[in-house]
Parts: sequence; structure tokens; C-alpha cells
Amino acid sequence: MTATAAETDLARLYFEVNQFYARHMHLLDAGDADAWADGFTPDGEFQLPSAPQPARGRQALADGVRRSAAEQKAAGEVHRHWHGMVTVDPVDDGSVHVSCYALVLATALGGATRLHRACVCEDVLVRSDGRWLIRSRRVTRDDLPSTCPETTAT
Amino acid sequence: MTATAAETDLARLYFEVNQFYARHMHLLDAGDADAWADGFTPDGEFQLPSAPQPARGRQALADGVRRSAAEQKAAGEVHRHWHGMVTVDPVDDGSVHVSCYALVLATALGGATRLHRACVCEDVLVRSDGRWLIRSRRVTRDDLPSTCPETTAT
Amino acid sequence: MTATAAETDLARLYFEVNQFYARHMHLLDAGDADAWADGFTPDGEFQLPSAPQPARGRQALADGVRRSAAEQKAAGEVHRHWHGMVTVDPVDDGSVHVSCYALVLATALGGATRLHRACVCEDVLVRSDGRWLIRSRRVTRDDLPSTCPETTAT
Repeated sequence: MTATAAETDLARLYFEVNQFYARHMHLLDAGDADAWADGFTPDGEFQLPSAPQPARGRQALADGVRRSAAEQKAAGEVHRHWHGMVTVDPVDDGSVHVSCYALVLATALGGATRLHRACVCEDVLVRSDGRWLIRSRRVTRDDLPSTCPETTAT
Repeated sequence: MTATAAETDLARLYFEVNQFYARHMHLLDAGDADAWADGFTPDGEFQLPSAPQPARGRQALADGVRRSAAEQKAAGEVHRHWHGMVTVDPVDDGSVHVSCYALVLATALGGATRLHRACVCEDVLVRSDGRWLIRSRRVTRDDLPSTCPETTAT
Repeated sequence: MTATAAETDLARLYFEVNQFYARHMHLLDAGDADAWADGFTPDGEFQLPSAPQPARGRQALADGVRRSAAEQKAAGEVHRHWHGMVTVDPVDDGSVHVSCYALVLATALGGATRLHRACVCEDVLVRSDGRWLIRSRRVTRDDLPSTCPETTAT
């Protein structure tokens, strides 16, 4: 069997999205808020599970990460964000819709590792200057009731 | 370095299997029993860890998922199936042998997330009408003694 | 869109590294110490989180796995090593730098599954006779204070 160009491109896209997520979460878990926020478009938005409306723009997104990083440091915990079971679906407008599971692990210094959160993450990615950026992200938490917010990121 | 056609095809196959598993488990965890069962061949079989013999055919497979989904709903839990550490090995007859780890996470509404199961999943996938289908699946659980059932799915 | 040869190669490399890790960890968790150690170069080294200096060479590496496997057997536990959130970066000398998260799950026979370790793994992989080998590995544990050992594997 030989692959058509389109099939090869999907494999490449899958690689790109997975590697993008890996770098993106390495930055997040290292507390590198600005570099993490640069993974969104300038007007990118992030619908957090419990927030009334999405955070918008890199400054607001980075500020949120700085607050979380400070809280984790105060608690003496390291967090690790894992994406898995990723589906990628290219859309006609050139964007890519991604749906995946997102796990957050928390480890206390000198202590045990626990499952902090089990979530579902839905992203719309767009290509810009040769790299992928998140135009919108919506995360839902398995421990919270399902909601259909009036303002969704996707 | 440049990739040969065969090498590119393996990368494509790896993408296809991983994306297939992601969609397959999204359907399972959403309780979409029939769509999930359509990921098996019409005579596909699933050797469950504690069942005396494999479930066979889409109807039986879907019925099993419906029962599990009802139990989870009654318990107020969401389950998430994660496949990871996936190996894909094409076989001469055109099928693909896959071996991977399979984790099941359970989250109670308003509660914590726990590791429900750690398993190993061995699948035989076949190509049909442009998509992958599971011809046989054998799952073993890490918390149960190893067994070599007389009737195995692979 | 069509992929350039270089882009296709990166997708192939990502596949190869992920499949390499899957086989490598399947061997480790099965206690197949020598086959696991063959995934390192003959002079490969592994900087363990709490060891004063790296283990070097396949014999020493395999011996370490044999000791761990015996301990797990005595404790009646099965361990599963999961790599995730993998980044691959080819370097000019032909090696590939990989950074990923590494989770160790432990399951007691007849018991529950627990998160044993959350780690970060940094590997330098080299190509030899058509397959990837680990020239050096450095693993850090999230539950231990960050250290910059004088002798690092990378």
C-alpha cells in the first residue's frame, strides 16, 4: 500500500498537533506563562470549566497561568498536564478541530502523586507563520455537571 | 534523510490507529454503544478479562456497553478509557496487530478521579471500506492473575 | 497543502520514537531486562533520580532492571511505564533529543492501581543499524527537589 499526499498530510498534522501540545504543556507546567500564552492567537480565548466567560487574549491567559503557578508553588506541588486520545479534524476554513482527554496530575514535594483533574479539551487550531496556534479552547471537567454555556469558545 | 514509501506508510498507520482509538474511546465513554460497536467487524470478538468466553458480534458488544453505561450512570461516575504505549505491527494477511496499555479513569460527580483499571489491550485490526475495524480484542487486567484462556481473541 | 520531505520525515521520526518507547516499556514492565537494555547503546547511560551517578552499559542497566523486577514480584505488584507529551528535536550530529513525561502505575494483585511516580524523562537517541538506541537518559522525579547533578546524562 502507498499513501496518497492527503493521507500523508493527515499523519503529519497528527504529529504536529501532538508535538505542539507536548511543548505547550511543558511550558505550562514549568510556569512559563508568556511562552505558553504565545501558543494562542492574539485574540485567542479559553473557556475554563468554572469561569462564567472565556479568558481572552494572551495577557489575560498568561495572567491566569501566573496565578495558578503561584498557587501551586505555595502548595509545594508540581502539576503535569497530559493530553491523550487526540482526534484531529481539518475544517474547510483551514482550521483544525481537536478533541482530546486532558489529565492533570499533582505531586507534592516528598509526597504522593494524585489525579487532580480529568477533563475533556476541545481546541480550534489555526496555522500562522508556519506554526499552530489555539484560536479557542473549551475545557470541561468530569467532576462537574455538564453545561452548555451560552458563550462557548468553539 | 528521506523516508521510503514503506516508512512513510508505517507513520501513517500509526496515526490512523491512534486516531481510531481516540474516536473509539470517545464513543465508548459517551455511552454511544452502537457507534462504538461499529468499530468492530460484524463478527468481531472481545475477550473480556473476567468473562469465560469472548463476546461476539456488534449486537452483543453494544449490549455490553449499554449495561456498563447504565451502571456508571447509576453510580454517578464518568469513565475515560486511555490507550497508550501503542505498538503497531502489520502482518502479511493485511491485518495489523496492536498491543497497548489501557487505563480506565473514573470520576464521581462532585468527587475525585481515581484509577479504576490498568489493563493491556491486544487488538487485531483489519481494513474494510477505507477504515479500520477490530476483528478481535483481548484485554487483560493488571489486578487479576495472568491467564491463558483456551479461547483467546487473538 | 502538501508535505515537504523534511516535514514528512519529522512525522516519521515522531512515530518511530513513540513506537520505540512503547516496545521499550513493554519489555521493561515484562521484566525482560536484557532485551530492554539492548535499547541503549553499548556505552549508554541512565541517570536515575536518586543515584549519585549514572548507570553505564547494558550489563549494569539490565542488572538494575532485574533487581527492580524482583522487588516488584516480591511485593506482588505490576508496574506500567507510560511516556506521554513527547517532543522530538533532531540535532545536527544526527542524534535526537526527546523530552517527555513519564508516569509509573503500580497495581497490586487483587488490589487497586496507584500512581507510583510522576517523572520527566530526557533522552538522547541515536540511529544505529536501522534502529534507535538511547545514548543517554536522565529522569527526574516530581516528588524530589530539583537538582543539577554534576554528572548529567545529557
